[in-house]
Amino acid sequence: MGGEVAGGNPGSGGDGEENNNRNIAEISLKELSRKLEEFAKERDWEKYHSPRNLLLAMVGEVGELSEIFQWKGEVAKGLPNWEESDKEHLGEELSDVLLYLIRLADICGIDLGDAATKKLVKNAVKYPPPPILDQ
Amino acid sequence: MGGEVAGGNPGSGGDGEENNNRNIAEISLKELSRKLEEFAKERDWEKYHSPRNLLLAMVGEVGELSEIFQWKGEVAKGLPNWEESDKEHLGEELSDVLLYLIRLADICGIDLGDAATKKLVKNAVKYPPPPILDQ
Amino acid sequence: MGGEVAGGNPGSGGDGEENNNRNIAEISLKELSRKLEEFAKERDWEKYHSPRNLLLAMVGEVGELSEIFQWKGEVAKGLPNWEESDKEHLGEELSDVLLYLIRLADICGIDLGDAATKKLVKNAVKYPPPPILDQ
Amino acid sequence: MGGEVAGGNPGSGGDGEENNNRNIAEISLKELSRKLEEFAKERDWEKYHSPRNLLLAMVGEVGELSEIFQWKGEVAKGLPNWEESDKEHLGEELSDVLLYLIRLADICGIDLGDAATKKLVKNAVKYPPPPILDQ
Repeated sequence: MGGEVAGGNPGSGGDGEENNNRNIAEISLKELSRKLEEFAKERDWEKYHSPRNLLLAMVGEVGELSEIFQWKGEVAKGLPNWEESDKEHLGEELSDVLLYLIRLADICGIDLGDAATKKLVKNAVKYPPPPILDQ
Repeated sequence: MGGEVAGGNPGSGGDGEENNNRNIAEISLKELSRKLEEFAKERDWEKYHSPRNLLLAMVGEVGELSEIFQWKGEVAKGLPNWEESDKEHLGEELSDVLLYLIRLADICGIDLGDAATKKLVKNAVKYPPPPILDQ
Repeated sequence: MGGEVAGGNPGSGGDGEENNNRNIAEISLKELSRKLEEFAKERDWEKYHSPRNLLLAMVGEVGELSEIFQWKGEVAKGLPNWEESDKEHLGEELSDVLLYLIRLADICGIDLGDAATKKLVKNAVKYPPPPILDQ
Repeated sequence: MGGEVAGGNPGSGGDGEENNNRNIAEISLKELSRKLEEFAKERDWEKYHSPRNLLLAMVGEVGELSEIFQWKGEVAKGLPNWEESDKEHLGEELSDVLLYLIRLADICGIDLGDAATKKLVKNAVKYPPPPILDQ
């Protein structure tokens, strides 16, 4: 169990196999949630995964994410002058925040994909787009 | 443009239509990323979406999420004694963190689904599951 | 009890009285810590002031502080173009972070003034100033 | 210049000298602010100390502070079962948050001691203490 994760090829990120590529490109919040649950179960880590523990762990990762940007002044979209290794590091820190966030939602019994979809709808109602004026 | 979001039914969260249910239940990071991009474009908000602006906006939402938990002491998994309205509020704050995180990754040119999948694999290598002892 | 705080003049911030001016200009971490302790005691709020409650409350205030800066792009030192009311709001959010931080340290039994002084010394050893080259 | 900091005795935290003890026990926000300014000047670090850089650096330290508490579940006041080295680590992380907060306020032209004193007064007005009922 969980072999999908542990048995993957860390360096590859896509191996030409159709189905797997789709998984990586379009992975759902639910799939990530399931993988995280398996991951915790296999290591007997569920006992540590209380809501406030996970929240503080997420805050810790937000801190690490902020450290990447802290001395840089304004940063251009697309990070044009960043080293590839710095982008990879950034991807890891963004992921750490995401994974704790998904796990926190799951442990709280919140369906995050559902909640986010609803929030987008609510935002669209709150901030209606401006009318299109030109033909 | 963006009608998928604005035209939805805020309160429903699933309307029995097969395809839509699947979207809500299994929404991918990519789909959310696309919706956020449309949302920003329609409102001419792209000019505000620099990496550090989005990061600070996300930190703001992490703060709102923390406020929900701040005076509660330890909180049990599944939030057994919470009012439905408090759970809904929690879902919204979790979503706000998620949406800014996805948008931040996108603006930085990071494929968050890909990065998270790789990070899970890396974590599985770093923390191998214990051997199964039975039999 | 606590009259020093509650009996002050909110709008004044300095009333020409020598001793009071000194207090406001050079207030120590210890004095703020004592005031916060009195404040909590008088309201029977000590029961809420556990370490992790205070930490999460502080994270909440860090979020509010970040919201002030979130859509501004880079901000110049001294905030040259800010409205007076925005600066006042900033002062309040900075204060909220400070007050929870001091209270957190106190509840943990940490002397924050002592710890900060030691940390400055440690930093000075870790990052020695460059040699002075002239003469 | 800055000799008080760099020339101090890292391990001592109080050397029996009356005046110095008072400084350590009752150090003011202003004194810490001045020390931080000297520290930055001596190292030519002022160019890095923009408001948003300092804010993100502070968020980074809040993350490190949260990491100390993340897997601990609820923590009792006074940290009764903590190792001395863990308390020292905690003191350092609390200090790091404090020092960036003070520096951020200073760079923004905000008198933090003044702002915090006013905020305490404002809080006392907002949350009046309950009447004392017994004789």
